Amino acid sequence: MTKKAVILLSGGLDSATCLAVAKRDGFDSYALSFFYGQRHDSELDAARRVAQAGGAREHRIFDLGLSAWGGSALTDEALAVPKGASADAEGIIPITYVPARNLVFLSLAAAWAETLGAHDIFIGVNSVDYSGYPDCRPEFIDAFRRTVTLGTRTADDGGEWEIHTPLQHLGKAEIIRLGVSLGVDYSLTVSCYDADREGRACGDCASCHLRREGFRAAGIPDPTRYAARH
Amino acid sequence: MTKKAVILLSGGLDSATCLAVAKRDGFDSYALSFFYGQRHDSELDAARRVAQAGGAREHRIFDLGLSAWGGSALTDEALAVPKGASADAEGIIPITYVPARNLVFLSLAAAWAETLGAHDIFIGVNSVDYSGYPDCRPEFIDAFRRTVTLGTRTADDGGEWEIHTPLQHLGKAEIIRLGVSLGVDYSLTVSCYDADREGRACGDCASCHLRREGFRAAGIPDPTRYAARH
Repeated sequence: MTKKAVILLSGGLDSATCLAVAKRDGFDSYALSFFYGQRHDSELDAARRVAQAGGAREHRIFDLGLSAWGGSALTDEALAVPKGASADAEGIIPITYVPARNLVFLSLAAAWAETLGAHDIFIGVNSVDYSGYPDCRPEFIDAFRRTVTLGTRTADDGGEWEIHTPLQHLGKAEIIRLGVSLGVDYSLTVSCYDADREGRACGDCASCHLRREGFRAAGIPDPTRYAARH
Repeated sequence: MTKKAVILLSGGLDSATCLAVAKRDGFDSYALSFFYGQRHDSELDAARRVAQAGGAREHRIFDLGLSAWGGSALTDEALAVPKGASADAEGIIPITYVPARNLVFLSLAAAWAETLGAHDIFIGVNSVDYSGYPDCRPEFIDAFRRTVTLGTRTADDGGEWEIHTPLQHLGKAEIIRLGVSLGVDYSLTVSCYDADREGRACGDCASCHLRREGFRAAGIPDPTRYAARH
């Protein structure tokens, strides 16, 4: 029997690569996306396209009312998305941080996985994110793995969960090279924090800067659809 | 400044007691309940009454689509709620187990707490629940505490979260005595897995058995409203 895994799929570049890695590693993929009041909900259209292209067995979009709590530029209309490459400055938790986001996402992934009889979750956290987002760091991921193993049926049956972070030690260019080698079509993905309704990237936010620089460094033509010429 | 805490409030006996303890300990209480497709949604009416009576500063009900995943008698219409005191047999994870429920609840409590600038969460897990539910055990709670400390701003500012489990070592009768000493009105609470629309308890499910036995053992008249005479 093929092993099942839940893949956290944002519709961005990293998680699309993660899905391809899960497929390469022989997992049956159950892709999970969240609507959490993010302004860039064209991400979810991208997630649908990526899930289909990536051969996910199933794709669910979980509607999560996190925006009710505010406190992040990604969910709070009153806060502007910062522009410029330095917006995610090293060592400072950026305003685009959603409180406990990966903790909530991983917990819901675990809940779905538990009903599927799965104990594998893929998440596309990577070294680019480490500095600013505590919930992308290896020590957090490992603490979560331990917590979910203790908090579900595995506590009694001796099983172990695995939280796969195949991008953990990769930079953006390496992620792109890996994905291209696995056949990922990055034109389907949206990374921009501020994409328009058609999913075209702003080209100016920290995420756009990182992504464009990644394609440049990888020596691979950037297939991103931009709202304006950059 | 008074310290804020998020209190997980189901509307049952345990969490009502927890709220009273948080108040006793000087916290400003932010009560959080979940609608997760549970059949006993009269619990939420109870939660509203309990939050108000218990002096919560704010009460939010978070709509969580867990029922979409099925797999538990508490959320799945196709599964019957088991009757009889032995329904939650020792050492067997009961059919009323909701996959990774406390993990999901605690994660969302942490997300809210983070936006409130709070690092304290109260949850009413207790020794009665230990045998069947892995996500009620101390080792799970402590692993979660570590995970949330590593996954939020405290990872960088050196702060520590605290997950308060004031009922951890108490049996049902002791919980009731504690709550009565703190002025909890248990007639407002609903513990039954299968309450009717008016919040009257079935009197037959495992939760009803435990609760009734608790009042008997505490020597306190049972104020529970039952659907039929027991």
